[in-house]
Amino acid sequence: MVKVPGPFKTPPSLSLDSVTPADVPERPLAAPRTAGASKRSAVPAFEVMQITDEVAKRRAAGHDVVSLCAGEPSARPAPGTLQPAGYTGPLGTIPLREAIATHYLEWYGVSVDPATVAVTTGSSGAFQLVFLTAFDPGDKVALVSPGYPAYRNILTALGIEVIEIPTGPETRYQPTPELLEAAVSEHGQLAGLIVASPANPTGTMLGREELTALSDWCNKHGVRLISDEIYHGITFPEPGAPDPRGVSAIELSRESIVISSFSKYWGMTGWRLGWAILPKELVAPFESLASNFALSPPAPAQELAMRAFTPETYAERDAVVETFARARTLILDAAQDLNWGTSAPSDGAFYYYSELGPQLERFGDSSTYARALLEQADVAVVPGSDFDPVAGHRAVRLSYAAGEAAVTEALERIIAFQKA
Amino acid sequence: MVKVPGPFKTPPSLSLDSVTPADVPERPLAAPRTAGASKRSAVPAFEVMQITDEVAKRRAAGHDVVSLCAGEPSARPAPGTLQPAGYTGPLGTIPLREAIATHYLEWYGVSVDPATVAVTTGSSGAFQLVFLTAFDPGDKVALVSPGYPAYRNILTALGIEVIEIPTGPETRYQPTPELLEAAVSEHGQLAGLIVASPANPTGTMLGREELTALSDWCNKHGVRLISDEIYHGITFPEPGAPDPRGVSAIELSRESIVISSFSKYWGMTGWRLGWAILPKELVAPFESLASNFALSPPAPAQELAMRAFTPETYAERDAVVETFARARTLILDAAQDLNWGTSAPSDGAFYYYSELGPQLERFGDSSTYARALLEQADVAVVPGSDFDPVAGHRAVRLSYAAGEAAVTEALERIIAFQKA
Repeated sequence: MVKVPGPFKTPPSLSLDSVTPADVPERPLAAPRTAGASKRSAVPAFEVMQITDEVAKRRAAGHDVVSLCAGEPSARPAPGTLQPAGYTGPLGTIPLREAIATHYLEWYGVSVDPATVAVTTGSSGAFQLVFLTAFDPGDKVALVSPGYPAYRNILTALGIEVIEIPTGPETRYQPTPELLEAAVSEHGQLAGLIVASPANPTGTMLGREELTALSDWCNKHGVRLISDEIYHGITFPEPGAPDPRGVSAIELSRESIVISSFSKYWGMTGWRLGWAILPKELVAPFESLASNFALSPPAPAQELAMRAFTPETYAERDAVVETFARARTLILDAAQDLNWGTSAPSDGAFYYYSELGPQLERFGDSSTYARALLEQADVAVVPGSDFDPVAGHRAVRLSYAAGEAAVTEALERIIAFQKA
Repeated sequence: MVKVPGPFKTPPSLSLDSVTPADVPERPLAAPRTAGASKRSAVPAFEVMQITDEVAKRRAAGHDVVSLCAGEPSARPAPGTLQPAGYTGPLGTIPLREAIATHYLEWYGVSVDPATVAVTTGSSGAFQLVFLTAFDPGDKVALVSPGYPAYRNILTALGIEVIEIPTGPETRYQPTPELLEAAVSEHGQLAGLIVASPANPTGTMLGREELTALSDWCNKHGVRLISDEIYHGITFPEPGAPDPRGVSAIELSRESIVISSFSKYWGMTGWRLGWAILPKELVAPFESLASNFALSPPAPAQELAMRAFTPETYAERDAVVETFARARTLILDAAQDLNWGTSAPSDGAFYYYSELGPQLERFGDSSTYARALLEQADVAVVPGSDFDPVAGHRAVRLSYAAGEAAVTEALERIIAFQKA
């Protein structure tokens, strides 16, 4: 018998019942959920993937299986040329899905079934697949402005109607049940709501009470809540404050979809790795779409991410967050000298979002301001119009991810520029 | 002045006119092209990306720019924990786009403008973005069966109507202008045609004459040709035969879209890296979609892929193709002993697609055959039903990517299994 190197890296499927059941109560639904998976997510998964599972199971049981299934060269590249890394399963490797689930126990004290964790190609990969899985063309999905523009643009390109909810300082730039009621009165039944906490571009967060109110409202009205939690961990809580990493929607309801990423807290932007936590009934349709749209998230990134959840890495990343905290303080302390208008409370992420206030009299709008600042003082900031088509022309976003030295220099230049 | 480490890795945009113009004549269009970019691709790109370009240009001109733009931590992870790799531009790094363009000169003798090359997250990333860029919901796109199932499933999930053209040995499992005329007569105007050469699952190829006929037909009828060339280079030409690597659609018309990948010839499956070559008018809408749907292709994979186009790597990969060639010969030589039905000419890729012929009398269909073969002889093959919903239940696909030893063992087992 010849020993054949296995071209398959897909492990056997996780069983949805293989793990301790969630200890979070299902909140009662006052109205029946309008939609499970979308109609368009009903695409077939590859049969080859099922055979691949079968092969893995037989090998695990000691069989010497010869597989002529995979369209994947098994030859190992020569040393010094290209490094081998095969496909993983469409939802990622089982050890990484388990490690992510454990991370939820560590940070939030919540039990997550690894079978409901889908590793994706960045949170971007999660957003597109989640939107395809949960929504059909013509469905209405609410989100707030200012907000991350890719939500709006991906939804639009997929034929989903975006319901923009303008927000400001009165609700800390976050949605509320009252704002959602108003949106329904004006636009009719919603299929989904996207929230982000900490949010981009404002940095504002939803506390436990606020997120619970939104989660309950969504469950009551059959609206799928999608919670973007990619900035969790980049937070600046007072010592002893509750929920120091942020509140996860998965703590509150198993009907919600959580999206997160290795890009921000772990700084792995270019590796393109994120994840989604899905309601059980959406796992299979999501996997079918993933197997067609993406085949597999990047394998080397998944290998690297296995090191993300060690005490050493948490400590190292928390030290990075400390540097963001110091850069943030520099900006907050400079608020008066900046002589801008209302700013959002910068609870988390590494963003400071502010109206330009008095500066608008001179520059007219934030794009003009940003261009002049770049050309005359070599400081780059982002005009709010990227994030808010209605009121963003009055605001700018500063990212303090660049750190203290950059922020110190930038603040000096901005203040000098405005005095010139 | 403080030296600020640049959080941006996006290089300045390539100009579409910065490179020697293509030396391939535009073929005259007998009919006006029906569609440029899709309506849904008209989503805004991030303004932050334009500022990022501006920052890069000013830095290149010697300015000491402080950037507070990017939502990307610039802190370098500690040694031994996670490796840093930042976002690249949404179409990939300029050096890689240039290297890919040069590859077309090397292999096909055709000049490609690097500004029309988009690096993507595997060919999967290219397919979804190309389909979104080129087609609107309700558009009709033709493809052949048997064929790669993800074409059909991605198109369907995006609301594009799939026009299946059944093929068989009489056209070498490839489309022809006559088959396309018949499809138009039955279904009306097509927006697109997808071809693959070498094809999955059949391995058959389109020669220069055949591909030219299809390319001309598409241009004449305003149909966007999408040419999947991910198996180029995995070919088994006779010595001295023309077009040993395959014929690229970009040699024949600048109106066609070429999709390719580092996964097959270079064996980089798990790294998830591919590319598209786009008609000039589709570059900007494709980039807008990419900046929203993907942000950036994986950065470490792009770095690694810069080593793909050296003489050493070509030689190393050609040696791997030689191993496929030997495994292929083993299967072709065993055809009589296998006692199956008609098989497709296995011109390229690493697939052998065959009807089961006499075996169907005993097993009924190929799924039953494949299951019995796996359970009784521990050999895994893929039933054709994955690739062809109509006639695939009569056929199986063998991948000989696993190499000679695996194929030798599998053939012995299959023949013994059938005799049992």
